[in-house]
Amino acid sequence: MTTRSGKPSGSGRAGRSGPTIHDVARAAEVSIGTASKALNRTGHLRQETRDKVLGVAHAIGYRPNDLAQSLHRARSMTVGLITNDSFGRFSFPIVEALEQTLADQGIAVFMCNATDDPARERQHLDQLMRKRIDGLVVTARRADKRPPIGPVPAGLPIVYVYSQADDPGAYCLIPDDEGGARLAIDHLVAGGRRRIAHVAGPERFEAVRLRQAGYLASLSSAGLAYDPALYVNGPWSEAWGRDAVARLFDGASPLPDALFCDNDQLARGASEALRERGIAIPGQVAIVGFDNWDVMTLSARPQLSSVDMNLTALGHEAGAALLRLIAGEHLSGVRRLPCSLVIRASSQS
Amino acid sequence: MTTRSGKPSGSGRAGRSGPTIHDVARAAEVSIGTASKALNRTGHLRQETRDKVLGVAHAIGYRPNDLAQSLHRARSMTVGLITNDSFGRFSFPIVEALEQTLADQGIAVFMCNATDDPARERQHLDQLMRKRIDGLVVTARRADKRPPIGPVPAGLPIVYVYSQADDPGAYCLIPDDEGGARLAIDHLVAGGRRRIAHVAGPERFEAVRLRQAGYLASLSSAGLAYDPALYVNGPWSEAWGRDAVARLFDGASPLPDALFCDNDQLARGASEALRERGIAIPGQVAIVGFDNWDVMTLSARPQLSSVDMNLTALGHEAGAALLRLIAGEHLSGVRRLPCSLVIRASSQS
Repeated sequence: MTTRSGKPSGSGRAGRSGPTIHDVARAAEVSIGTASKALNRTGHLRQETRDKVLGVAHAIGYRPNDLAQSLHRARSMTVGLITNDSFGRFSFPIVEALEQTLADQGIAVFMCNATDDPARERQHLDQLMRKRIDGLVVTARRADKRPPIGPVPAGLPIVYVYSQADDPGAYCLIPDDEGGARLAIDHLVAGGRRRIAHVAGPERFEAVRLRQAGYLASLSSAGLAYDPALYVNGPWSEAWGRDAVARLFDGASPLPDALFCDNDQLARGASEALRERGIAIPGQVAIVGFDNWDVMTLSARPQLSSVDMNLTALGHEAGAALLRLIAGEHLSGVRRLPCSLVIRASSQS
Repeated sequence: MTTRSGKPSGSGRAGRSGPTIHDVARAAEVSIGTASKALNRTGHLRQETRDKVLGVAHAIGYRPNDLAQSLHRARSMTVGLITNDSFGRFSFPIVEALEQTLADQGIAVFMCNATDDPARERQHLDQLMRKRIDGLVVTARRADKRPPIGPVPAGLPIVYVYSQADDPGAYCLIPDDEGGARLAIDHLVAGGRRRIAHVAGPERFEAVRLRQAGYLASLSSAGLAYDPALYVNGPWSEAWGRDAVARLFDGASPLPDALFCDNDQLARGASEALRERGIAIPGQVAIVGFDNWDVMTLSARPQLSSVDMNLTALGHEAGAALLRLIAGEHLSGVRRLPCSLVIRASSQS
């Protein structure tokens, strides 16, 4: 073993593979068949023979060959991950946690980026099937419904995370957007806010519609009337956050005393626009964003409160669910994992 | 084949594997040996026999088993990717391009996140060696030198991308930070700027030192004297960008007429601070950032010019280099790929 790099592989394949089962058998003075049984924990062997083979294997630095084992086992110890998120802000924490959960079980993850191209997705699937993956995780840039992934062999364990398949048999893990919005609104109400505006993202996103439902439910629980003048929606940009403030503060009277924004870019833009108007945050207007993206929340003045979708927990859960499916358990339907609220200066009462 | 999901795998393994070489042989009315030769493009067969077997294999939906083939071939058609970037903003475009380049050659990528934990890195390496990977790509959060990855078998092809190994035999691909800085300064000089300040990141980053070298080289080429009062450095944050403006504009006289910032967060913070001081951008002060991160450049007012490290090109290049190493070519040393400059309103003359 060395740490050299950048060398041509050339004829070095044999040297590179390290000790083989033949080397173990020779060193332990047993047959290949006996060495195989000991190393694969199969067949009948005396315990001392088994221990001797394993001890020798360890001593000479033998590493089992997963490829060879896969052919004699039901499992390849690999899973595929297909993502359509070419930006990565949402998928990365999920993927990282997923990879960690599976690596702890000795399972390696093939990463495939399909970038919303169905032909590329099929190409990736074909490649993954050739690798005889044990399971598949599908994730995306947004948690909306997509056609079920395919074609894949019947019975292949699949988990959708931050993504939903239009198939009642599919198992999908997504954040609880409605619950997240309720956390934000309940917090603002508890701080004494009564005219809470909702600066929303594009309504074609299911998340936006669910957050609006959460907003309405919390207002209703608090006995507050819904004022349609306090609902504005537009694109996911700081520029729209700034424009939304103009829309909300140039017309309506009485003015809003809080803004619930569907992401942190909207919240950041809104906070800048309020600052430029000389409106005090949180004194006159409190703000809560969504995503808890530190790049936005920590740079805003004051720093922004935000709903956290707990994407790392979502990724760990997806890994655990895939392991359960691989083990033969049945899971289906949509499971929504709770969000949490991170309170910073922008909404302190 | 179906598109169902979420079902237990249970006893479905055989059904899931699809047609085997036995099915191909039976349908083509040839022996297993003949089918194998035809499917693996090996041995001597009449062309019409070969065509018949391949035609039948295609017709019945046979997919070769990469695992089985790997045992009979020198290559597993898999490579490992080890990243230490737990944030993902820099590594994601690289990884995406790398994966695409390799997928086009039928090679799948195992993604391993080591999150700066040496024990986890070793665990990942061990797992990758068991998978008999054909090569390895190492990337990180910053392009600075790191210890060579290991232990790995001698001769394993390795490419470091956005990362450098402290080993002259290693092959490393990184952005040309000095050249990127020169592009920015040359552009500002061409626009008539004469007092160009450098708002730098932390000096422990090699990239920061190289960008300072580029800044000095370009000033010198333009016949401009270096004024140490125009160099300030601090952390990678918008807050430091704002503070840097206070530092530069409260003291020095004459004032800077341009700011070259080591990333877009610094540039964004600086632009906000200038705006609040009523200093016109680019009328009185031009700004150029680094990274070309749209989240920052497009939300600033005015939008920010920025140096682009061309991370996607870097990823494609890393994939191509790994393929060349796997093919037996010898590559070593540090190769710096050119940056480009994206000009927006903040530096237009």
